[in-house]
Amino acid sequence: MSISGVKALVFDVFGTVVDWRTSIAREAAPFLARHGSAADPAVFADAWRARYQPAMEAVRAGARPFVRLDVLHRENLEDALREVGVDPAGIPGDELDRLNLAWHRLDPWPDAVEGLTRLKRRFVVAPLSNGNIGMMVDIAKRAGLPWDAVLGAEVAQAYKPLPEAYLRTAEVLGLEPGEVCMCAAHNEDLAAAQACGLRTAFFARPTEHGPDQTTDLHAEQDWDVIADDLIDLDRRLDA
Amino acid sequence: MSISGVKALVFDVFGTVVDWRTSIAREAAPFLARHGSAADPAVFADAWRARYQPAMEAVRAGARPFVRLDVLHRENLEDALREVGVDPAGIPGDELDRLNLAWHRLDPWPDAVEGLTRLKRRFVVAPLSNGNIGMMVDIAKRAGLPWDAVLGAEVAQAYKPLPEAYLRTAEVLGLEPGEVCMCAAHNEDLAAAQACGLRTAFFARPTEHGPDQTTDLHAEQDWDVIADDLIDLDRRLDA
Repeated sequence: MSISGVKALVFDVFGTVVDWRTSIAREAAPFLARHGSAADPAVFADAWRARYQPAMEAVRAGARPFVRLDVLHRENLEDALREVGVDPAGIPGDELDRLNLAWHRLDPWPDAVEGLTRLKRRFVVAPLSNGNIGMMVDIAKRAGLPWDAVLGAEVAQAYKPLPEAYLRTAEVLGLEPGEVCMCAAHNEDLAAAQACGLRTAFFARPTEHGPDQTTDLHAEQDWDVIADDLIDLDRRLDA
Repeated sequence: MSISGVKALVFDVFGTVVDWRTSIAREAAPFLARHGSAADPAVFADAWRARYQPAMEAVRAGARPFVRLDVLHRENLEDALREVGVDPAGIPGDELDRLNLAWHRLDPWPDAVEGLTRLKRRFVVAPLSNGNIGMMVDIAKRAGLPWDAVLGAEVAQAYKPLPEAYLRTAEVLGLEPGEVCMCAAHNEDLAAAQACGLRTAFFARPTEHGPDQTTDLHAEQDWDVIADDLIDLDRRLDA
């Protein structure tokens, strides 16, 4: 399979490259225990993540100016804690700030480092994430993700799936949209990228949302490339 | 020598990490010969580069909105050709566009790849250049520069030495200015960074402007670190 003319592969990160749910649960577990909560840390991770799209929607709709995801996560954290029965009012701000940085310590899926390292030989590889630059750099340094650049919402000043997020990313790379391939485990992300003229590559992450995941279990459209994971993506692009 | 608390090293690129003059002369030589010019390619490189600061000054002064350096280079190219006796009006636009990409094929100084690779083990390393993202990515891919992220004027939407270029770079990394060290072969760049609260590291590139260079031959202030080159910088920061 080939995607002729493609020079850069840009990646969704949360769920596609890193396993945010397991990582946030691991980071939150000692915090919850320390504050007397018996909540399942994975349930807390889901509660925090559930506030992600609504918070970005206020920015996408123009109801507030662009702010980086670290800021939205910090705002959402207090609501998420309340949902699992922890009152954030009694917790020092700097302790909440430290927990907020859990999003900077997400573990990669097992194939991510090897897959990206192989793909980097032939393509520019960069995140096109809604995460901010500092968060992406911290994740990459800790995990060993070999990005050529850190692109995405903060560079584009627009959150996916707004067209500007995809189009400005191609533009800063000096490429036409059709020379860029969006790689994601989420059909919605790929549909938005495709509408902007980008090429598309899908691979499923069937446990991103835990063992009972019902969404994004398979490709819902005829994307340019459909692979099993990042290592398989490299194999398919080589063929 | 230590710069305690520093987490990221950000680098000037033109002259500090790459040898733009020799590289542009090499790229321009066949172009000039093809168009019947007997001009010294290094003189042409100097003519092109001489228009760099005035072009950015129009953006810095607010006389025009931010445009990336590729655009300024392309504008300046035609004047630089006229200066060496080549009429750009008779040359197809796409041939001029290809020559403009010479700035994407700059060679690193001999110590750059090894020095950055070593420094990357302990610090975030990123360009803080007036070059644009696509240019920096192309240079890095070709030369093997192992940046953790590509920062600088296009991310900050401001050209050095404006304070915003330094301060927004620290901000997107989630760091205080004093946790970032500006590394450059140019005293003026370091003075501007220091005024913003960044730490500073200097090493001379005494042939950046050719064999008769008279500027930036040595540190003109007591910068936090003064080294011989990037490998020596790593040694000094380790001590």
